[in-house]
Amino acid sequence: MADLTQLLENEVFMAFASYTTIILSKMMLMSPATAFYRLTRKVFANPEDCESFGKGENAKKYLRTDDSVERVRRAHLNDLENIVPFVGIGLLYSLSGPDLSTALLHFRLFVGARIYHTIAYLTPLPQPNRALAFFVGYGVTLSMAYRLLKTGFYL
Amino acid sequence: MADLTQLLENEVFMAFASYTTIILSKMMLMSPATAFYRLTRKVFANPEDCESFGKGENAKKYLRTDDSVERVRRAHLNDLENIVPFVGIGLLYSLSGPDLSTALLHFRLFVGARIYHTIAYLTPLPQPNRALAFFVGYGVTLSMAYRLLKTGFYL
Amino acid sequence: MADLTQLLENEVFMAFASYTTIILSKMMLMSPATAFYRLTRKVFANPEDCESFGKGENAKKYLRTDDSVERVRRAHLNDLENIVPFVGIGLLYSLSGPDLSTALLHFRLFVGARIYHTIAYLTPLPQPNRALAFFVGYGVTLSMAYRLLKTGFYL
Repeated sequence: MADLTQLLENEVFMAFASYTTIILSKMMLMSPATAFYRLTRKVFANPEDCESFGKGENAKKYLRTDDSVERVRRAHLNDLENIVPFVGIGLLYSLSGPDLSTALLHFRLFVGARIYHTIAYLTPLPQPNRALAFFVGYGVTLSMAYRLLKTGFYL
Repeated sequence: MADLTQLLENEVFMAFASYTTIILSKMMLMSPATAFYRLTRKVFANPEDCESFGKGENAKKYLRTDDSVERVRRAHLNDLENIVPFVGIGLLYSLSGPDLSTALLHFRLFVGARIYHTIAYLTPLPQPNRALAFFVGYGVTLSMAYRLLKTGFYL
Repeated sequence: MADLTQLLENEVFMAFASYTTIILSKMMLMSPATAFYRLTRKVFANPEDCESFGKGENAKKYLRTDDSVERVRRAHLNDLENIVPFVGIGLLYSLSGPDLSTALLHFRLFVGARIYHTIAYLTPLPQPNRALAFFVGYGVTLSMAYRLLKTGFYL
């Protein structure tokens, strides 16, 4: 167990663990957000989900799409598309021995940008709020990927 | 190599590796499941996929959506949305030195809940079968995230 | 820090880090590809995204779907569905002490197959180009999962 304990005594890895936990938990909030819009607007994707509102033909009117629900789903998918590369590349970056201050800058910018992205998507704020939030997060991940491949690679 | 071997001698990490491999393999089964429904119902998303069924105008009638295909695709996306946080948070949780029995309880509940979720989605079973399966898996991941952030964090 | 340095001195892990960084960066390219098709074809999903093209009723005509945009989005989602299991299972596989040459064969085949999959999807090339690329990547991940569970598991 000595090695594992040492891993979490490494400050960069510890910071990565904290920010990753926060941003993955934020992403998970998109599921109840979708459920909230589905229930309040009575918009469902599956017949078995709206049985309590009416049976048979009567239930079919709830099987539709809604702008607010689709908006949350797009925000959720955009999170997946961007947080997956951050977690994968960020884990390897954290193990490659970067400066603590540089690593913290990357993690903080990414987490801040993705939280702002969600706010900008769901409010919605006028563009380019969402676009800028997207590009900051995107740039952080690319910067970590660049640093990783520069440190040395084995192909 | 000594450290790596030690990592896989750690029982919690070993259990995490096993359950993660199982649940990611289960998620991968959703791709052939989608292909099965697409082929048996002749429902395609791309013109090049249904060329063997007919060319030109004749092929266009296969470019449509189908309830069963959309159902499998929703189940697949729901897997992605929930298994990604489990793998990311679970990896860090496994390295934070939890009790073996507590960790096993988390991993087993999650994997069981997600397998049941897929069965409930594809059968489909009446609600709240799928909702309960979803919330068990969701709760397990949040519980690991809470434990991680309580163990100590670096922001 | 000694352990972390040792981790990146392990050749298999180093190779995994390089190939994962490459394939996750490739997946990230799907976002600007989607944006490119959205802007050149003037096809948007959100009203706030096309405000510069016209306000109010005039903007609504840009809120539509387009075959090219949907094609890139499907390719992106297929990447997510396949690269997530590769990264998760591949990380654990890399830590399980495989032969360097076997591991390299897995990583190279997967990365090559997924790059070819994207080319086949976006060109589009006639089937079975895309299907074969999909199955090569799928088989590589399953082969790593099999090797992992065979090495020993803890349930």
